Amino acid sequence: MILTVTLNAALDLTYRLPDLRPHASNRVRSVSRQAGGKGINVARVLAALGHVATVTGLVGGATGRSVRAELAEAGLPDELIAVAGETRRTVAVADDRDTTVLLEPGPEISPPEWQRFLGHYQHLLPGASVVVLSGSLPPGLPVDAYRRLVERARAHGVPAVLDADGPALLHALPARPAVVKPNAHELTAATGSKDPAEGARRLRAAGAEAVIASLGPDGLLALTPEGRWRVRPPGVVPGNPTGAGDSVVAALALGLAGGLPWPERLRRAVALSAATVLAPQAGRFDAEAHHRLLTQVRVEEFDRTYPQGEPCP
Amino acid sequence: MILTVTLNAALDLTYRLPDLRPHASNRVRSVSRQAGGKGINVARVLAALGHVATVTGLVGGATGRSVRAELAEAGLPDELIAVAGETRRTVAVADDRDTTVLLEPGPEISPPEWQRFLGHYQHLLPGASVVVLSGSLPPGLPVDAYRRLVERARAHGVPAVLDADGPALLHALPARPAVVKPNAHELTAATGSKDPAEGARRLRAAGAEAVIASLGPDGLLALTPEGRWRVRPPGVVPGNPTGAGDSVVAALALGLAGGLPWPERLRRAVALSAATVLAPQAGRFDAEAHHRLLTQVRVEEFDRTYPQGEPCP
Repeated sequence: MILTVTLNAALDLTYRLPDLRPHASNRVRSVSRQAGGKGINVARVLAALGHVATVTGLVGGATGRSVRAELAEAGLPDELIAVAGETRRTVAVADDRDTTVLLEPGPEISPPEWQRFLGHYQHLLPGASVVVLSGSLPPGLPVDAYRRLVERARAHGVPAVLDADGPALLHALPARPAVVKPNAHELTAATGSKDPAEGARRLRAAGAEAVIASLGPDGLLALTPEGRWRVRPPGVVPGNPTGAGDSVVAALALGLAGGLPWPERLRRAVALSAATVLAPQAGRFDAEAHHRLLTQVRVEEFDRTYPQGEPCP
Repeated sequence: MILTVTLNAALDLTYRLPDLRPHASNRVRSVSRQAGGKGINVARVLAALGHVATVTGLVGGATGRSVRAELAEAGLPDELIAVAGETRRTVAVADDRDTTVLLEPGPEISPPEWQRFLGHYQHLLPGASVVVLSGSLPPGLPVDAYRRLVERARAHGVPAVLDADGPALLHALPARPAVVKPNAHELTAATGSKDPAEGARRLRAAGAEAVIASLGPDGLLALTPEGRWRVRPPGVVPGNPTGAGDSVVAALALGLAGGLPWPERLRRAVALSAATVLAPQAGRFDAEAHHRLLTQVRVEEFDRTYPQGEPCP
């Protein structure tokens, strides 16, 4: 079983209207809602690929109850822990031109709630083949929360895929997560380097076993214990990139669980990511395009020359 | 007891952030929420004036439960009826310059739910001295819903204050509501006349016993069975006009319940409305300013000359 952890779950609302007028009153034409937060999104992608992942993390309040109701409807096993605060909502206001996103802050988590979560997580780990740690930390959690989760997973022999950024990412590296997946922006913010290869090298040096950097339309850059690759979609992929990163994480987790060779994991990750961009609905993927893309993704060994005296990653 | 009816209740969320950037991702700094819908807002104003009004209407889903929890916290007696649909939210995105409002559509109400509400309403009427009917109709309700509520109130000898617009207002007039309170824009939309006095006259001719038109900074224009008045605040009132209309309705309902002479009701309505504009928080009023304004509001007999052959209102 793949276990996905969402510490800052959300109820994702999409408001559709013809034209958002700032500083005026806008009637929303339709509202759709679904459980969100990156770990839950990854679980949804895994379910669509036929793998029923277990969802854990923290939820609270009326919005938390809505998240759980939506998970039940989607058939995703719910091992979330209830907290006193109110789960955040995100509102994506989609008009005919573009989308404006409003992100509520997450609920304040108390130390006893965090301890209760750790106990529950420890209890779930023996059943897990891979653990996915995704998304931001809500207020109140220690900044090294992910480090503790990676350490506990490692103690049970369970590899961790970590999709986080900033201090939450950096503090977790010494615990040696199996995979970290920053995007180009997160990589620069975390390492100070504008060169993704150099940034990825620094994250490996700090402890990550593999660094898979998602570079948007340019695909993935991978530094792994087996080698280094650039993996690209067959051409320009038009569409909506929302959720493409969660699809990469889902594919990497499945590849890790299945023990696939790295080039094959990466090929699948890029195919699934591109199929997600192609799907009209944010966060879904086009199953037909996914199958077609699997044969079209280009996987190339990556041969950056390193400065003399500097160890290769 | 004053009974307030909110057929399209809401959970009103306020998102604060420094600067709303359309078509980008915005982190909300703080979220506040309160039960809303005009009838509930009127009940909140009445409670602040020391009159505990009863709240009835329709709520549903997780958002409906949040509305009820907030009413309980505010100490407002809850006689709402549960429906299957999800109560709407409104989101006011307040940045340092201005406010952008997003209004979700209300839930679809089924005919049996409407019948159940009518039964409950009928059961509440014998305890009511005045009924306040405020706000929009959710989808699924008959367009003459307010007419039926005014008729039933009248059958119990209970006068109705109606704050609605468009067809919901026009269809209710033949049932002879005691007071209707359109604003200038609603008056023009309902009657086609840009002259508030003429528009008010037309609403009286169609059945309203008194028409109190709220004209923003210009105060009120009142056509009543006792006479016609223009009632103005003492000068320019700076502030936030959100909720000023609900304060007018609350004061008119109290004046009706107390049997005050019309000029006194109007004086109080304008004082409370101006004190609401002055309060920093939307929908609250400045109690000190309210007391001061009571002696400063100007009430003048209104002496529009009517064209020959046309009856005076």
